[in-house]
Amino acid sequence: MDKILRINMSGADGPQWAIEPLGAYAGLGGRAMTSTVVAAEVPPTCHPLSAENKLVIAPGLLSGSAAAMSGRISVGCKSPLTGGIKEANAGGQPSQMLARLGYAALILEGAPQEDTPYKVVINKDGAFISADNSLRMLGNYDLVEKMKAEFGGKVGCISIGQAGEMKLAAASIAFSDMEQRPTRHAGRGGVGAVMGAKGVKVIVVDDAGAPMRPPKDPVAFKAANKAFVAGLRKHPVTGQGLPAYGTNVLTNVVNEAGGYPTRNFQTGQFEGASRISGEALAELENNRGGEGSATHGCHRGCVIRCSGTFYDKNGRFLTKQPEYETVWAHGGNCGIDDLDAIAQLDRMDDDFGLDTIEMGATIAVAMESGIAQFGDAQGAIRLLEEVGKGTPLGRILGSGAAVTGKVFGVERVPVVKGQSMPAYDPRAVKGIGVTYATTPMGADHTAGYAVATNLLSIGGQVDPLSPKGQVELSRNLQIATAAIDATGMCLFIAFPILDQPDTFQSLLDLINGFAGLSMTADDVTALGRTILKQEREFNSAAGFTKSHDRLPEYLSKEALAPHGVVFDVSDQALDEVYNF
Amino acid sequence: MDKILRINMSGADGPQWAIEPLGAYAGLGGRAMTSTVVAAEVPPTCHPLSAENKLVIAPGLLSGSAAAMSGRISVGCKSPLTGGIKEANAGGQPSQMLARLGYAALILEGAPQEDTPYKVVINKDGAFISADNSLRMLGNYDLVEKMKAEFGGKVGCISIGQAGEMKLAAASIAFSDMEQRPTRHAGRGGVGAVMGAKGVKVIVVDDAGAPMRPPKDPVAFKAANKAFVAGLRKHPVTGQGLPAYGTNVLTNVVNEAGGYPTRNFQTGQFEGASRISGEALAELENNRGGEGSATHGCHRGCVIRCSGTFYDKNGRFLTKQPEYETVWAHGGNCGIDDLDAIAQLDRMDDDFGLDTIEMGATIAVAMESGIAQFGDAQGAIRLLEEVGKGTPLGRILGSGAAVTGKVFGVERVPVVKGQSMPAYDPRAVKGIGVTYATTPMGADHTAGYAVATNLLSIGGQVDPLSPKGQVELSRNLQIATAAIDATGMCLFIAFPILDQPDTFQSLLDLINGFAGLSMTADDVTALGRTILKQEREFNSAAGFTKSHDRLPEYLSKEALAPHGVVFDVSDQALDEVYNF
Repeated sequence: MDKILRINMSGADGPQWAIEPLGAYAGLGGRAMTSTVVAAEVPPTCHPLSAENKLVIAPGLLSGSAAAMSGRISVGCKSPLTGGIKEANAGGQPSQMLARLGYAALILEGAPQEDTPYKVVINKDGAFISADNSLRMLGNYDLVEKMKAEFGGKVGCISIGQAGEMKLAAASIAFSDMEQRPTRHAGRGGVGAVMGAKGVKVIVVDDAGAPMRPPKDPVAFKAANKAFVAGLRKHPVTGQGLPAYGTNVLTNVVNEAGGYPTRNFQTGQFEGASRISGEALAELENNRGGEGSATHGCHRGCVIRCSGTFYDKNGRFLTKQPEYETVWAHGGNCGIDDLDAIAQLDRMDDDFGLDTIEMGATIAVAMESGIAQFGDAQGAIRLLEEVGKGTPLGRILGSGAAVTGKVFGVERVPVVKGQSMPAYDPRAVKGIGVTYATTPMGADHTAGYAVATNLLSIGGQVDPLSPKGQVELSRNLQIATAAIDATGMCLFIAFPILDQPDTFQSLLDLINGFAGLSMTADDVTALGRTILKQEREFNSAAGFTKSHDRLPEYLSKEALAPHGVVFDVSDQALDEVYNF
Repeated sequence: MDKILRINMSGADGPQWAIEPLGAYAGLGGRAMTSTVVAAEVPPTCHPLSAENKLVIAPGLLSGSAAAMSGRISVGCKSPLTGGIKEANAGGQPSQMLARLGYAALILEGAPQEDTPYKVVINKDGAFISADNSLRMLGNYDLVEKMKAEFGGKVGCISIGQAGEMKLAAASIAFSDMEQRPTRHAGRGGVGAVMGAKGVKVIVVDDAGAPMRPPKDPVAFKAANKAFVAGLRKHPVTGQGLPAYGTNVLTNVVNEAGGYPTRNFQTGQFEGASRISGEALAELENNRGGEGSATHGCHRGCVIRCSGTFYDKNGRFLTKQPEYETVWAHGGNCGIDDLDAIAQLDRMDDDFGLDTIEMGATIAVAMESGIAQFGDAQGAIRLLEEVGKGTPLGRILGSGAAVTGKVFGVERVPVVKGQSMPAYDPRAVKGIGVTYATTPMGADHTAGYAVATNLLSIGGQVDPLSPKGQVELSRNLQIATAAIDATGMCLFIAFPILDQPDTFQSLLDLINGFAGLSMTADDVTALGRTILKQEREFNSAAGFTKSHDRLPEYLSKEALAPHGVVFDVSDQALDEVYNF
């Protein structure tokens, strides 16, 4: 990873590409790379769809190596959804492939002169960019099939569906998985709309002939990796819960805790939760045969293996095993308890290229406005179809919950900085509320997953219903997360490293053995702080103030059943999160 | 004007009203009253459609008196369009009527328990509030006819059309004129959506039995009024230009100056300008007989008389004589040069209750996205019909240009703080650009009408194409305007008082004679500063920073024909406007 591929779409003679040395960006990976490039090169006040914005795609520091769990990829830009800096993170194959080809970052900049979908092919010989009108308004599934037919069964794809082409603010970027399906998405913040504005429909990555990245100290690296994997297997969440049921293992947990946002965050428990839980999903998958509930990784090198496959009633592949957030967004949050309908919505989101969290939250807001009924699965499917077709209604919904609330005059819109809250009600899980409010990303559970400590007793215990201790908890998790997001490691490694000091040490040994460094825990913390400060400075220059570090007012006023709680972490306390 | 009527819509037994003494609000009128009440009583971070927001309607200090030009009214709230504080100003009859009834302000607060349109009747005996489902989704014209039938030919109406009921962010509040037609609108910032959120469809004002407000010093007042009126008649703009052609006299002036935003601000001159100019409008009206181009006031006591009546091809009343901003918004900005179509669009805006500036700007953005063609008048009418019907497309458009740009992925969206720019391109009229950028209102020409000095040589001369001197110009005008907006005076009195020191003195004498004060010019300036600072503090608490005091970036990059100019007042200079 000693070079950057920069593609300028603005050329009068069509897009131009160049390979550059890392320069000032040397030593950066993942979110550290994307946020540093965006902060350095994107004017904070530019229009997110303008030529001035840039789309940065960066594998993690360890991506492309033999390190377990190192296949995550970061996508950065100024977000069309929030207006602030964005890092959206995905699994899939392209991270490892780009890293093996030596690219620490891919930067798309400028804007094309003509409205033509471009195809970018990256292989060991460089980049090949061509206009291809036959790709126009293809869904991700058809698009990836077409690329497979053209480039073979081993390439990886980074692509947008119809939503990205329409530059909708809920548009995602798809990363193909081990089965060459477009199921892993950099979902949040409308990164797909920025790719659409750059005119790039698909990036095909062909790593044929590119070797695995070698560690500087092979002996130390190998030993550390072994200890690290053993640590992951030893922890109950990464060793048992996630492999057994996937992320949807959380449905029953969060619902029982009374923090499961139901029907657009009206209550904290869903009477249909047990019908859409991870346990119910596993049973359904087993009954349908095939691979059943057997799980696998979203990228090569994964040892947690929380992904799965969803087959329809006829035993045909429909979509990946829907993640917890998706099951919640299209399920409980819309009052829907039908796993087949939820899986269908997941498939549609992946195909159109949409963030499942944003779309579930948006459909729930639309339901609150009365244009569909809570619990009406077919109504939800019809609404999502509108997005794929690009009808006016579809464009409203594809612009996310904040716009939908504005257009339909709905007051109860669960967003922060314009981005929808995920699957934990901040009134009953107050630590995650602090993260929603203060992360530079807009409401985002992955930015500082306080749910772990609030509900799962991981990394200590902090009462989810009390405002006490949540600021420190969220701050520490936000810092640690920013650092992990730089490594290319899956965020789920946080569970064992928070609980098991030896596993944290083996992660440090792994990084040090790979890069020939001698990083300490303090260095990791310093890296996380640096990333966050940079992101926050970008947002500040873009116009954000502490008044944007707030949850919507109604969450401080409307008590949430069953606990009868409001969000009561004070504004002063929220303003302390970034005092570091 | 010694009392406030406060109506709380939240009561479990229905809305409650109370008459209160002025207390801390004594001595305030118009914008001074609305902005002070909003700053004191509305939480800056509340949702604009929530029960926490308040709608404040306040006659000016001189309203209800015999002072010429004193019939303007201010409407204040937190704006659903900008998210900041809002004062929208209108003519019509209700200002004089409310003032004669003794009300310095009408405050609507809370939110109704049920979704029922309410009718409020205000007369000398108090307030009478009743639910009336027969009013639901009536346009302003039918609504006012119904009120006339119910309450007689002399009442005034303050009302919302379908747009306000739908809580659309471009919704206006209509004030009936001297002919009891809903043609005068507090247009900007979505104040109609706040009235809709309060559940109030119409406020009927009956001033029967309420006397004109007497001056403290009748002799001084009468003499000052005489001198003031003479001053207005002496000035070429208020004495000749406006009476002859109405506000649309500006079309040729601004177009010749190359500052007429054409086809969504793509160029600065419109080839069809002469076909929609004030001169062409007067000729058309004369040819159609009736009152022809004879002008009249929008409220009793007006001596400028820039309003008129537009009859259709069959000689039937269609709408008021469209104002310059409306002719521009639906005309040149959409590439339309057909006065009948423009008048039809004006009528529809008034009937649905929509801001003509916002709607014209929005339709132009929609045209840029390709869903209609520039110049297609019937296409524009069809788009506006969608708003009245409340279709998804109509709701997008009725949410204003910023939302429409977001939903359709358009980058060139001419808004500041979410509000559309009016009829002067800030690249060729840089003083008004400074006002657009820095006023707490969002892009608003009336907040500091630098066009007067840039293009009309009123109040001095400042080269419109140079960045020099624009900051001082805009600052001084913003301060003066805030003070005038407190008096209830029509803003057009600014032309003579800027040019004629004796007319300014007669205005001071008029205020002093009426209120028994001895205000000086410095006191007026101090009042203006106080209002602006209060508004700016509200916005700051709501989350606005200097990065919001900026024009969209493309105006600094895309040169405007014919002068080839960009907006080049520096950010540092813009940040100086509020250094007072």
